[in-house]
Amino acid sequence: MALIVQKYGGTSVGTIDRIKAVAEKVKRARERGDSVVVVVSAMSGETDRLIGLATQIESRPTPRELDVLLSTGEQVTIALLSMALNAIGCPARSYTGGQVQVRTDSAHNKARIRAIDGARVRADLDAGSVVVVAGFQGTDGQGNITTLGRGGSDTSAVAMAAALKADECQIYTDVDGVYTTDPRIEPKARKLDRITFEEMLEMASLGSKVLQIRAVEFAGKYRVPLRVLSSFEEGAGTLITFEEDDVEEAKIAGIAFAKDEAKLTILGVPDEPGVAYKILGPISDANIEVDMIIQNVAAAEKTTDFTFTVHRNDFDKAMGVLRHTAESLSAREVSGDKRIVKISLVGVGMRSHAGIASRMFEALAKEGINIRMISTSEIKISVVVDEKYLELGVRTLHDAFQLDADGSLDVVA
Amino acid sequence: MALIVQKYGGTSVGTIDRIKAVAEKVKRARERGDSVVVVVSAMSGETDRLIGLATQIESRPTPRELDVLLSTGEQVTIALLSMALNAIGCPARSYTGGQVQVRTDSAHNKARIRAIDGARVRADLDAGSVVVVAGFQGTDGQGNITTLGRGGSDTSAVAMAAALKADECQIYTDVDGVYTTDPRIEPKARKLDRITFEEMLEMASLGSKVLQIRAVEFAGKYRVPLRVLSSFEEGAGTLITFEEDDVEEAKIAGIAFAKDEAKLTILGVPDEPGVAYKILGPISDANIEVDMIIQNVAAAEKTTDFTFTVHRNDFDKAMGVLRHTAESLSAREVSGDKRIVKISLVGVGMRSHAGIASRMFEALAKEGINIRMISTSEIKISVVVDEKYLELGVRTLHDAFQLDADGSLDVVA
Repeated sequence: MALIVQKYGGTSVGTIDRIKAVAEKVKRARERGDSVVVVVSAMSGETDRLIGLATQIESRPTPRELDVLLSTGEQVTIALLSMALNAIGCPARSYTGGQVQVRTDSAHNKARIRAIDGARVRADLDAGSVVVVAGFQGTDGQGNITTLGRGGSDTSAVAMAAALKADECQIYTDVDGVYTTDPRIEPKARKLDRITFEEMLEMASLGSKVLQIRAVEFAGKYRVPLRVLSSFEEGAGTLITFEEDDVEEAKIAGIAFAKDEAKLTILGVPDEPGVAYKILGPISDANIEVDMIIQNVAAAEKTTDFTFTVHRNDFDKAMGVLRHTAESLSAREVSGDKRIVKISLVGVGMRSHAGIASRMFEALAKEGINIRMISTSEIKISVVVDEKYLELGVRTLHDAFQLDADGSLDVVA
Repeated sequence: MALIVQKYGGTSVGTIDRIKAVAEKVKRARERGDSVVVVVSAMSGETDRLIGLATQIESRPTPRELDVLLSTGEQVTIALLSMALNAIGCPARSYTGGQVQVRTDSAHNKARIRAIDGARVRADLDAGSVVVVAGFQGTDGQGNITTLGRGGSDTSAVAMAAALKADECQIYTDVDGVYTTDPRIEPKARKLDRITFEEMLEMASLGSKVLQIRAVEFAGKYRVPLRVLSSFEEGAGTLITFEEDDVEEAKIAGIAFAKDEAKLTILGVPDEPGVAYKILGPISDANIEVDMIIQNVAAAEKTTDFTFTVHRNDFDKAMGVLRHTAESLSAREVSGDKRIVKISLVGVGMRSHAGIASRMFEALAKEGINIRMISTSEIKISVVVDEKYLELGVRTLHDAFQLDADGSLDVVA
């Protein structure tokens, strides 16, 4: 008998009928002999409704009170789902975050989970109940209600699974798993049966918004096996695993991308220690997050060129800061480009296989796609290209690495 | 500096604008130098909305889960009111029932408060905050969320006032106080400045639905001075007091009435010990509440007649039970009447003044109103009359005891 934590998001519990469908799904898991803890979000639309009430009072409501308000959203869902389970003969008990001792820090609206005491949940499971827990919320050391911020229910589920040493944490969403890339861009995109944690982190942070990145990190830290699957269809989804048993085969997991990037370049700055800090310090002080950073050394002239990317929304602000910096550094020129995207090839396999980068560049070159920036890590290669090449670039790489094949390509460089 | 507990019901906090108005009212009390604890209900309509969701799942939702669901209603209000207070520069902190240790028994949906630990509230008050507490809810000894049943917020407020030894508990409603009778029936009805607890209990239980009867009992038990006043208008309302300083003047506080009564009679039953139990036992077993009970002894025939009243909704069921009893007791006859009402004269003054009953009967007789039953207690006299005499009876008594006068009538028999 396995212990499973299942998490259902707002869309999955968005109506009474959907809550009833979730209850049936939970019941089937019980009938397979598993113990089940269910973590739920607020019904879709509810959090926005509550925020709407709050902002009628003040545009920036007291953070502590906003948490008291928003936490009611999940509380409504846990009660309704427990009723639905009881109604079909599946005993269930609901708990708020505070009731099952989800301890967080005191950072209202974006709290982080510090500890969970699973004793009460375990007692109910042992007594044969399904336990339904409100995601997204907890209480701090003084018993004040806190919330984890949007999407925090994934983290709640993983933390609960870690505390209970659950056999698997299943995240039910409106997609049926993790794909090699976004099927809206490449219809031949293929659902992955498994993906490693590191790959998932890269896929998630690069725009495949299936899972909250913090939840994946949490799962990695506590080694909680995580599975992404559909609330609405049957199927085994995608298992996110620690095992890299077939790493020798050098698989590419998929292609992630980030739209809405922008690129800034400062040319001809003195090539001396501390120049990177002088350029990026003011950007960071302006609360702008930087993604890729590239510095080209031009030793002969004792100057260097420096390029970085930011979210497109921050572009104008970043250009202003950078122009100011350019003056104080006597830089030759500042330039920027708002119409770029980032495309990344992700896979643990590439660690040991140098040929992947060249295959990637070759494929893009054949299509006449000019690469504007390149950045690499252990398990990914990212290129920045003009916005207009997003779809073509993704499809080209998907083809080049045969990601639509039944199993992914074995790359032997 | 006084410590005041203020309670605002669902209508008083029914919209964002009304919540803002309540915040202003609370702020004014703070500015007068008082410490304020506010107890609130769910926004009007919210409890019904939540029940509507639950009954889409099952007609009789799990009581424990219904409490988890319904308690979110007040939680939304405490958050919004605290935001509104903070927004106008009046520091406030909100708490659910569980957070301030409102301990109840485990009778879900109709729990009773056992204890409140005021320590946390007191600490916030000492720090200069207004404390906003969710009414209607608490947690049992195992930390399960409970609710007190409809109207329970009044009880929450009184219990909080008792725990904090508050100087006054103010119940804000949509009426500006307690009246000598219902102004919709007698336009000359007059607002009372004060009323004793015993009188208020009789007025409340007899249909003047200003305050929850349980809250009044609670206030009496813990000697909490209670004041009923309007959320929407200025004014001192009605103080419910323990002092009977002018009891010698034999005041009549007011006239209460109960519509929707029904009367059942069993004639010619053996006049022997235990017959009352034989008649009322089966009624009670059928979960029917009995109000007035009268037995007329007819010693010569060794039989007796027995009459009692029930709520009109229970009439048919009660008749069925009574007919069954009549057979086993060989009673002569069973009869009933669904079209009766009860009118009661309430006042601590009547304890020592026998003339009041005769004045009451005389006034009714003059108008040709036939009295069908009479029942008396220490501080009230109730008569049952035909339904059609309700308005006439109330107005006649209101006049006879000059309740519209500037001060009420001094009765000297």
